[in-house]
Amino acid sequence: MTGPELHDLARRLFPICRSITGEGVRQTIRVLQEFLAIECKSVPSGTKVFDWVVPSEWNVSEAWLADSSGARIVDFADHNLHLLQYSEPFRGMVSRAELENHLHSLPDQPGLIPYRTSYYRQAWGFCLSEQQKKTLSDSTYQVQIATSLSPGVLNYGEYFVQGRSSEEILISTHICHPSLANDNLSGILVALNAALHFTRNPAHYSIRFVFVPGTIGAITWLATNQEKWAAIKHGLVLTGVGAGEKFHYKQSRAENAVVDRVSELTIRESGHPFTILPFSPYGYDERQYNSPGVALSVGCLMRTPHGSYPEYHTSADNLEFLQAGALDDSSALLIQILANLSANRVYQNLSPFGEPQLGKRGLYATNPDENMAFLWVLNLSDGSHSLLDIATRSQMPFGQIQIAAERLLEANLLKCVG
Amino acid sequence: MTGPELHDLARRLFPICRSITGEGVRQTIRVLQEFLAIECKSVPSGTKVFDWVVPSEWNVSEAWLADSSGARIVDFADHNLHLLQYSEPFRGMVSRAELENHLHSLPDQPGLIPYRTSYYRQAWGFCLSEQQKKTLSDSTYQVQIATSLSPGVLNYGEYFVQGRSSEEILISTHICHPSLANDNLSGILVALNAALHFTRNPAHYSIRFVFVPGTIGAITWLATNQEKWAAIKHGLVLTGVGAGEKFHYKQSRAENAVVDRVSELTIRESGHPFTILPFSPYGYDERQYNSPGVALSVGCLMRTPHGSYPEYHTSADNLEFLQAGALDDSSALLIQILANLSANRVYQNLSPFGEPQLGKRGLYATNPDENMAFLWVLNLSDGSHSLLDIATRSQMPFGQIQIAAERLLEANLLKCVG
Amino acid sequence: MTGPELHDLARRLFPICRSITGEGVRQTIRVLQEFLAIECKSVPSGTKVFDWVVPSEWNVSEAWLADSSGARIVDFADHNLHLLQYSEPFRGMVSRAELENHLHSLPDQPGLIPYRTSYYRQAWGFCLSEQQKKTLSDSTYQVQIATSLSPGVLNYGEYFVQGRSSEEILISTHICHPSLANDNLSGILVALNAALHFTRNPAHYSIRFVFVPGTIGAITWLATNQEKWAAIKHGLVLTGVGAGEKFHYKQSRAENAVVDRVSELTIRESGHPFTILPFSPYGYDERQYNSPGVALSVGCLMRTPHGSYPEYHTSADNLEFLQAGALDDSSALLIQILANLSANRVYQNLSPFGEPQLGKRGLYATNPDENMAFLWVLNLSDGSHSLLDIATRSQMPFGQIQIAAERLLEANLLKCVG
Repeated sequence: MTGPELHDLARRLFPICRSITGEGVRQTIRVLQEFLAIECKSVPSGTKVFDWVVPSEWNVSEAWLADSSGARIVDFADHNLHLLQYSEPFRGMVSRAELENHLHSLPDQPGLIPYRTSYYRQAWGFCLSEQQKKTLSDSTYQVQIATSLSPGVLNYGEYFVQGRSSEEILISTHICHPSLANDNLSGILVALNAALHFTRNPAHYSIRFVFVPGTIGAITWLATNQEKWAAIKHGLVLTGVGAGEKFHYKQSRAENAVVDRVSELTIRESGHPFTILPFSPYGYDERQYNSPGVALSVGCLMRTPHGSYPEYHTSADNLEFLQAGALDDSSALLIQILANLSANRVYQNLSPFGEPQLGKRGLYATNPDENMAFLWVLNLSDGSHSLLDIATRSQMPFGQIQIAAERLLEANLLKCVG
Repeated sequence: MTGPELHDLARRLFPICRSITGEGVRQTIRVLQEFLAIECKSVPSGTKVFDWVVPSEWNVSEAWLADSSGARIVDFADHNLHLLQYSEPFRGMVSRAELENHLHSLPDQPGLIPYRTSYYRQAWGFCLSEQQKKTLSDSTYQVQIATSLSPGVLNYGEYFVQGRSSEEILISTHICHPSLANDNLSGILVALNAALHFTRNPAHYSIRFVFVPGTIGAITWLATNQEKWAAIKHGLVLTGVGAGEKFHYKQSRAENAVVDRVSELTIRESGHPFTILPFSPYGYDERQYNSPGVALSVGCLMRTPHGSYPEYHTSADNLEFLQAGALDDSSALLIQILANLSANRVYQNLSPFGEPQLGKRGLYATNPDENMAFLWVLNLSDGSHSLLDIATRSQMPFGQIQIAAERLLEANLLKCVG
Repeated sequence: MTGPELHDLARRLFPICRSITGEGVRQTIRVLQEFLAIECKSVPSGTKVFDWVVPSEWNVSEAWLADSSGARIVDFADHNLHLLQYSEPFRGMVSRAELENHLHSLPDQPGLIPYRTSYYRQAWGFCLSEQQKKTLSDSTYQVQIATSLSPGVLNYGEYFVQGRSSEEILISTHICHPSLANDNLSGILVALNAALHFTRNPAHYSIRFVFVPGTIGAITWLATNQEKWAAIKHGLVLTGVGAGEKFHYKQSRAENAVVDRVSELTIRESGHPFTILPFSPYGYDERQYNSPGVALSVGCLMRTPHGSYPEYHTSADNLEFLQAGALDDSSALLIQILANLSANRVYQNLSPFGEPQLGKRGLYATNPDENMAFLWVLNLSDGSHSLLDIATRSQMPFGQIQIAAERLLEANLLKCVG
């Protein structure tokens, strides 16, 4: 799908009120299923998932705040950010003073509605712009919050692309945010796009895409899919890839895992400006995948790191902020990273005593770079260096090293050993 | 003890004529025993200690040089630096020319008396200022050196603080210098102060303090206490900590031993200016502790490295040169290094699959740094990272990491594994 | 031999038409045999050597190009670079247009004759200056190339210096180039000079010198001498050491092999300007020795790297380009590298508990550097540090560390363990 097609799809998904549970997640997965046979999995409320418990399902019928004249001045129907996520039901008149404890605004960004949640602390509240809040001068207000918090399920989407190997790459993106475009419709869309690509063009690795609510969803997926961990050799969390000039790659806990090295090399070779961030146990769901008992090699591909841009977690993270071009570039980059991970094999030189005679095999290239690529692959293919190692040491493009390896393989000068 | 109290104690110890053996060392230990139950150990002259032999004990009754009129112009009674240490007995008239071979002065520092020794080469001599030496114009002089060099003992002091563990930290400081204040009353006093502190506040490690004559004393201690080596996990030689703007930490032979890393981190966090010096097999008794057959992890904490300041080994290293404030800061720093070494444990996260839910345990901190400390400790506590490793990688203060670990331990989210 | 003597010898060797096979190589070895009992080995054409086959032997009777008047305008008798190496026999009249396909010149260096070969592609041709080529305006030319390409042998020279150990250093230099002085009479001469030196002054290591045709010769030597590989602990390819201001040392594939570290240290201590080049699988015969199935630790010592100077592979690489002083310096440096490799032993301190008492053995040096060298050698000689490690860590000259070790060995304070 092209960037503009992805942006059109974002337009359909944007109004849905996603949260960590509830109808919004299911609706979102249903739209994605128009493109790809994503499975919608359900885990019942109350299920113990490691140290956590799947919470009650939260759904919203209506939610509004009316002034003393009965005029609805803040309404969930207008913008789903207006309601504090996981607000418990409430109906009644409250004084302006009491209401103050339930209002969330951004004094420093007075025109924007903030995004706020209260998953694990019982509360209700409204989010509104500081400008609007300043106009609330009545002495009492009518509150109507018709939400339900009751046993249900937590949903996540999962899609598996079979590769030539049973070893897997995990791509995880969060699906729990309501009307925020970059964070994280962008991650959902770019993951969808890569899934479409590799479904048509299988690679060495199988690739497992999971669309999970943040934190609790990743933990739930881990807890209910423990038998899948062993096959996962590399992984990426994908988020905030629809806006921003630079790419940011956050390393896995190991910091020099293959996924870290391949991602950095691929981004560098793409020519895009970028920054490599060291691992930290805060951020997105890489926190869970890199926890010490899970210890998967999972990095995080972003353009915009959390909290680093003014639109973050506000109503300004909207469809205008989301760039079709960014979705395009990010898709291409993710696909290239996955392709490079898949191409990064280890070979063994079958003619390792001195150089083999390339000329008699028609491999004596007139292009000196092509020649050097042959010599580097032959020299370092002793069963312990991957193509990534060879590209890194030779400072030659990964693609050129990969092509040289393919030609040497055809000439029976190499065999694949890992 | 405060810096001024330590300085007052220095005033009592300063006039004592310490050497590698003799009454001065015993007198010094007796003064220290007023504060702490330091044991005074004795090893007989002639005892073989590895490649060395404990020398004869040296004591001084009187020593002076008189001019042709009989006036005593250089007298040990005035300043014990005046006598070459380990001078053999001598009495007689000597010509000015012959006397020249027995006089030590500092042409470049004409007002100062140098400190000189001749432990292993039979000699006698006087040390005096270049200014005074220039006034010696008589043709003959009377020499009286009433010293004794005879079978006796070498003494050292030893004090053991029991910690919660039987594993030990060794603190070694030299006690062989006569009237030199910074080198090394400062080391003796700061060691005393730390010993007082940990006697009242035991830490994880037991701490063994040794007050030994330089070189031969350290070798003697090592040779006569070989059964104690195995328990010593870390060590510091302490010297020259009573003057000078900066701290200097000289690394152990391993250069990245835990004591090296904890000392550097602690000095850095103290805010004092400092320099890290690489190991070299010259300097103080770290030479002996880091010899290849001993191979203890012993660094050296100093303010003033040997030979690096004009007062070094001269009469200018006196009570005015010794700063109460420096003794205070050095005490605080040594105590903090020892506390950090003791706090530097390895934990294992008992809820290692994803993040544990901090909120339900009241650990969800409103302070973001506190939160990050929890997350870092949980993420890296896989049984292979110490708190030092975690503080280093997270670039958070060691104390904050330590507090987070303590709270997680109380919440049963960690157990200590090393 | 001095630089001028080596240069005189170059004058005799320069006119010989060496190639990868043929009389020229034998003639060259015969000249060298006047100085040293180098063996001249012969391997028959058709012998399979790993992935290669020893080619037919190539010899030249005469070769010239005459214009339509019958005047010989390009003649192998004038300069052996004029003939494309491995030209097949040809006799006949060719048009100017057809001749064009057989002429090699350097448009950017119009006054120079290039050096060209066609070992594995059947061809004939002449090399001439661009200036001369421009004068060829006749419509037909007479070509006479009386060469033979027939079963014979490939020759190489080998010379073995017995050291105290059966472990070896390999010195390899290429002997296949015709009238090119720096590339590679310089390598041949400097190898000869080092062979003479170590024949008279045996060192720890045995040293094997091989004078081999490039690529096919090195591969032939490897294939026909596989039983010798195991004893070779270090090696150097020697080439282009007769001109150029700086030394260039190209590292072995391992990049931090002992030969790499000793070579760098020795060049640095020599005071000559130098550059360290990382390994690459292109260049000289280090390519073969560092192939993954051979994996010998072989670096390459050069002044002038291949292709990096305008005289490279042209008639300007002549006896004027070759500098007696460079041959001298290069000889001294190679000899010092070999001496340092040989001196780089591992010792064990026999008095490892604290410092031994140097004074009682007459080793207490008045020179502080000498003293430090004793202390460093004693401190690090635990059976795992070589003298190279000690020199590197102490930042003291290798020679000083070596002398200290010798004196400590004499004093029975060390034993050699490797």
